[in-house]
Amino acid sequence: MAAVTANGSARGGGSDGVPRPTNPMVTPLLTDLYQFTMAYAYWKAGKHLDRAVFDLYFRKSPFGGEFTIFGGLEECIRFIANFKITEDDIRFLRSVMPTCEDGFFEYLSSIDCSDVEVYAIPEGYVVFPKVPLMRIEGPVAVVQLLETPFLSLVNYASLVTTNAARHRLIAGKSKNLLEFGLRRAQGPDGGISASRYSYMGGFDATSNVAAGRLFGIPIRGTHSHAFVSSFMGLEEILDKTLPSSDGLNKCEDFVSLVQNWLTRIQDSSSLGSTFGETSHSELAAFTSYALAFPNSFLALVDTYDVMRSGVPNFCAVALALNDMGYKAVGIRLDSGDLAYLSVETRKFFHAIEGEFGVVGFGKMNITASNDLNEETIDALNKQGHEVDAFGIGTYLVTCYAQAALGCVFKLVEINKQPRIKLSEDVTKVSIPCKKKCYRLYGKEGYPLVDIMTGEDEPGPKVGERLLCRHPFNESKRAYVVPQQVEELLRCYWPGNSAKQREELPSIHEIRSQCIRHLERMRPDHMRRLNPTPYKVSVSPELYDFIHFLWLNEAPVGELQ
Amino acid sequence: MAAVTANGSARGGGSDGVPRPTNPMVTPLLTDLYQFTMAYAYWKAGKHLDRAVFDLYFRKSPFGGEFTIFGGLEECIRFIANFKITEDDIRFLRSVMPTCEDGFFEYLSSIDCSDVEVYAIPEGYVVFPKVPLMRIEGPVAVVQLLETPFLSLVNYASLVTTNAARHRLIAGKSKNLLEFGLRRAQGPDGGISASRYSYMGGFDATSNVAAGRLFGIPIRGTHSHAFVSSFMGLEEILDKTLPSSDGLNKCEDFVSLVQNWLTRIQDSSSLGSTFGETSHSELAAFTSYALAFPNSFLALVDTYDVMRSGVPNFCAVALALNDMGYKAVGIRLDSGDLAYLSVETRKFFHAIEGEFGVVGFGKMNITASNDLNEETIDALNKQGHEVDAFGIGTYLVTCYAQAALGCVFKLVEINKQPRIKLSEDVTKVSIPCKKKCYRLYGKEGYPLVDIMTGEDEPGPKVGERLLCRHPFNESKRAYVVPQQVEELLRCYWPGNSAKQREELPSIHEIRSQCIRHLERMRPDHMRRLNPTPYKVSVSPELYDFIHFLWLNEAPVGELQ
Repeated sequence: MAAVTANGSARGGGSDGVPRPTNPMVTPLLTDLYQFTMAYAYWKAGKHLDRAVFDLYFRKSPFGGEFTIFGGLEECIRFIANFKITEDDIRFLRSVMPTCEDGFFEYLSSIDCSDVEVYAIPEGYVVFPKVPLMRIEGPVAVVQLLETPFLSLVNYASLVTTNAARHRLIAGKSKNLLEFGLRRAQGPDGGISASRYSYMGGFDATSNVAAGRLFGIPIRGTHSHAFVSSFMGLEEILDKTLPSSDGLNKCEDFVSLVQNWLTRIQDSSSLGSTFGETSHSELAAFTSYALAFPNSFLALVDTYDVMRSGVPNFCAVALALNDMGYKAVGIRLDSGDLAYLSVETRKFFHAIEGEFGVVGFGKMNITASNDLNEETIDALNKQGHEVDAFGIGTYLVTCYAQAALGCVFKLVEINKQPRIKLSEDVTKVSIPCKKKCYRLYGKEGYPLVDIMTGEDEPGPKVGERLLCRHPFNESKRAYVVPQQVEELLRCYWPGNSAKQREELPSIHEIRSQCIRHLERMRPDHMRRLNPTPYKVSVSPELYDFIHFLWLNEAPVGELQ
Repeated sequence: MAAVTANGSARGGGSDGVPRPTNPMVTPLLTDLYQFTMAYAYWKAGKHLDRAVFDLYFRKSPFGGEFTIFGGLEECIRFIANFKITEDDIRFLRSVMPTCEDGFFEYLSSIDCSDVEVYAIPEGYVVFPKVPLMRIEGPVAVVQLLETPFLSLVNYASLVTTNAARHRLIAGKSKNLLEFGLRRAQGPDGGISASRYSYMGGFDATSNVAAGRLFGIPIRGTHSHAFVSSFMGLEEILDKTLPSSDGLNKCEDFVSLVQNWLTRIQDSSSLGSTFGETSHSELAAFTSYALAFPNSFLALVDTYDVMRSGVPNFCAVALALNDMGYKAVGIRLDSGDLAYLSVETRKFFHAIEGEFGVVGFGKMNITASNDLNEETIDALNKQGHEVDAFGIGTYLVTCYAQAALGCVFKLVEINKQPRIKLSEDVTKVSIPCKKKCYRLYGKEGYPLVDIMTGEDEPGPKVGERLLCRHPFNESKRAYVVPQQVEELLRCYWPGNSAKQREELPSIHEIRSQCIRHLERMRPDHMRRLNPTPYKVSVSPELYDFIHFLWLNEAPVGELQ
C-alpha cells in the first residue's frame, strides 16, 4: 500500500491518475467473504468472465421524504481506479479459503478494473427510488467483488448528504449551518464522511479539522463549557494588554476595561435590573478568550445562566473589544429554551446598542447548538426565534431519524440475457435489462418524471409525446411532452470502451450543483409533511418485457 | 505519517511499543477546531500547563436498556501512545488560525502524551451511567485535544458492542450470530468497527474480510441471489467431475447425480407432492457452488421460492454430495416468514432423513438473515422457529434503534480545585472531583451497586457496612455490606507517574470477559422489557461536597 501523504490520501494514485480512496482502509478486502467464494465458484465453473451488468439503486427515500441526494461516487471511482489485490491479500485469502485451487489465486492477483465500465448519475443530483444511481458492467467475478465496497461507499454518503439537504431546507437559505458531529459519529471515518457529505448537502462549515483539511471545507470553532469552568476568576489573567485593532495604541489593562463595562451595564436602569452578580469564572474565561482572539470573539454563554450571567458577561467583553476597534462575533446557546433565550438575548443586544450607541450591536450573531434536528428547527421556526446559525451534531451525522439507506446491487443482465430478482414483496422485484435513464422536464422547468428504457430503445425527444408507465402497477401511466430531456447515467469509468470519461468535479462544484438541483424541484416533492412522490417510470416496451420475464421465471403455485 | 502495513495498522508504533490506531486517519487533527482555539487561549493566558482532570462518561444506557458495554479503550490508548502533531499538521493549523503567535505553534509541535495519565474501566466490562469509563489527567491544553478523538473512538464502539450483546441475550447462547453489516454501515470504517465490536459483544463471526484479517475474527460467507440468477441452466456446467471426500474415487458426472436425486425426491410420495418443477437456474447455481465447495455447501434458497424450489434443489445437491462422502452445511433464508419457513424446511429435512436413511440430515443448519433485530428475533422466539444461526446487518451495525451514545468529557478538577458543570436539567450536572470508583458485589455473587468516592477517601471494605447515596436525590440511599469490592478504574497510561500500566488484552480475551460479565449480572437488570436500573451511587462525603459546590456556583434567582 502506498504511503499516506499529508492530506490523508495516498500518493501515487493508480490507473488514469485517479487518486486512491480517501480512507486507506478501503481496499479490495473491505468486502463480504461471499464475494470471494462466489468468485471462486464462477472461476471453477469457467463463468468468471461472463459479462454482467449490475444496477446500484435504493428502493425508498429516507426520513419519510420523497427525495435523496446521491453521494459517494468519487470514492467508488477512486476505488476501482486503484483496484489491485496484493500478494499479502492473496496470502490471507488462501488461509481463509484453503480448499481453493492455486489457479484461482493467480487469477485474483491478475485482476484490475480495466475491463469494467461504470455509468452513474452525477454526484450531488437529486435521485429517486428504483432508478439506478450506478450501472456497473464487466466480468461477473470482478463486478461482484465491487458490490460491498460500492454499497459501503454510497449508502452512508447518500444518506448523510440527504439529511444535510433536509436540514438546509427546514433552516432556510439565510441561516448558517455548522456540522458539529465528529464526537458522536459512528467511528472516526463516519465523522470524516459526515463532515464531507454534510457540506455537499448544503452545510456551510464543520468543526472537524481533519475533514476541513482533506476536503477544503471551512472549519469553525470557539470554546467549550470546560474552558469556562477551567477559570476561577480574573486574577488568573496575567497578561492584560491588548493592542488596538489598527495597531496604533494599546490597552494596558483590558481586564479593567471589561470590568468597567460590566459595571456600566449593571448600573444602566434599562439593562441592569435583569441580572445581579455574574459568574467570575465565566467573565475570566470570556476575557481570556477575547485576548487570544480579539477579531473573532464568540462566547458560549450557558455554562452558568444565559440571561443572568452569560449574556451580560459577553456584552461587557464585546463592548471593551469595541473600544479597541474590534467587532465581536456573537454568542452560542447550548441548552435551555432556544427560542425564548435567542429572543431575549436579541432584545438585550438591541438595548445595549440603544444605551451605548454601538451601531450594529443588535445584529450580533446568535448560534444555537443543543441536540438540534429537523423537528426542533421546525419547532423553533414556528415559535419564532432570533438564531442566525445552527450547530448540528448527533442527529445529522448519525442520521438518527433513519440510520441506514438500503441501496442494493442487483444483477440485471448476464451475457446479454436480462435477469430479474423476484420477491413475494413487489417493491423488492428488480427491474431487469441494461437500461438507459432520462429525466424529463416540463414547461415550468421542474423535473416531471424519470424514465428507464431498454439500452437499444430510442431516447425521449423534446416536444414529442411519450407514455411513461409505472414499472409494476399497470393502471398507473401518463403521457408526457418533455420540454427538456436529460440523460442521467454518464460514463465515469469507460473500461475498454472508447467512451469519454466524465471528470470528477470538486466538492464545491458538487455542492453548488446540489443546491441548484434542490431549488429546481417542484416544492411539493420536497416538503417535510406528506410530500408528493416524484414519478419514476419505464417505457411501454420495458414494461412489457419486465412482465414477460416475471411470468416466465415465477413458479406457478398450487393451492391444496 | 508512517507507512501503512499490509494489515492496515501502522508500522513502527510509538511510545512504549503500543501500535498506532487501527485507522490511519485517526490523528491529532481528527478533532474539533475549538480544541485548538482553546489550546491557544490557554497558552496565551499561561494556563496551558494547569493540571486538569476530565471524566469520560455517558448519562443513559442505550436501546431502552439499563446496561452498556464499554468498547474503544484500546484505540484510545493507541492514539495517545502515538500522539504527535507533525510539521505538516502545524502548517495547516497556521493557515486555519492565522492570528496566533509562533510560540503557540512551537508549543504544539513539542507536545505528546508523556505527562498524561489515563485510568479506565477494562474494555468489555458492563458499565453504567455517570460512572467514568475513563479518567484523563494532564495539562489542560493537551487533555482538551484528546476530547474529540476519545469520544469518537468510544461512543460508537460502546454502542455497537452493547447492541451486539443485546442481540446475543435475545438469541440465546446456543445460536450462531453472524455480523453481515458492512454494506449498510455508516462508511467503511463504521463497517470495520462494527465487525470488531460485534464480535467483542458476543457475535461468532463476520462477513467482513478486512475486519476478519485485522482482528482475527472468524469470517463467513457463501453466495448471494445474484449468483443464483447468473446461471441459466445445468448445461452451463462444463466440468462435472467431483472427487470423493476420501479421494479414493471420482464422480464423472455430478450434475446427473444431482438430477437423479431431484427426481427421487420428486417421485417420493411423502416429499414430491409439495413442489412441482424447481428452478433450473437455481439448481445449476447450487450444483456449481457445491462443485467449488463440496466441504462447506450452504445454499441461499429464496431466490425463486423457498419450499417449491430452493429447499428441494438444495436437498438434491446435498444428497449427491452425501453420496460422495461430503456433508452439506445447510441453507440460508433471506425473505418471507422466517418462523414458518424454518419450521417447514426442518420438517422437509427430517422427511429426507427418514425417506433416504441419511443420518443427521434433519439437523442440517438453517441460517436466517432478513432485516433481523432484537424485536424480530424476539418475535421468532415467541412464534417458535428452527433457525440455528442469525445473520444480522443493518440494525446491528447502524444501531438503528438508537444511532448514538451520548458519551461526554467533562472537567472535574483543575489545579486540585474541583469543578462542576451545572445545568437546569439535573441529569446533566456533572459529578465533580477526581474520583475513585468501585463495584460492590453481594452474597449471591451479583454486582449490587457502583460507588464513586473522593480520591483520598478510604475505599469500601469487604464485610464492612457502608452508606451508598444517589448523587442527586437525597432520599435515595442504601446500606451495603459488600462481599467483594472491585476497583473499576485501572491505570492504562501512567504518564510520568510510577504506576504500572495495565496490559491491553486480545479481542478474544475481552470477548470472553464480556460474556462472563453479562452472565454475572442479576437478570432483571438485563431483561428487554422494563429492566431494573442498576444502582450508581456516591459516598456520603462526596454527596455533601457535590451539593456544597452546586449551591456555591449556582446563581440565586430573583422572581419578578
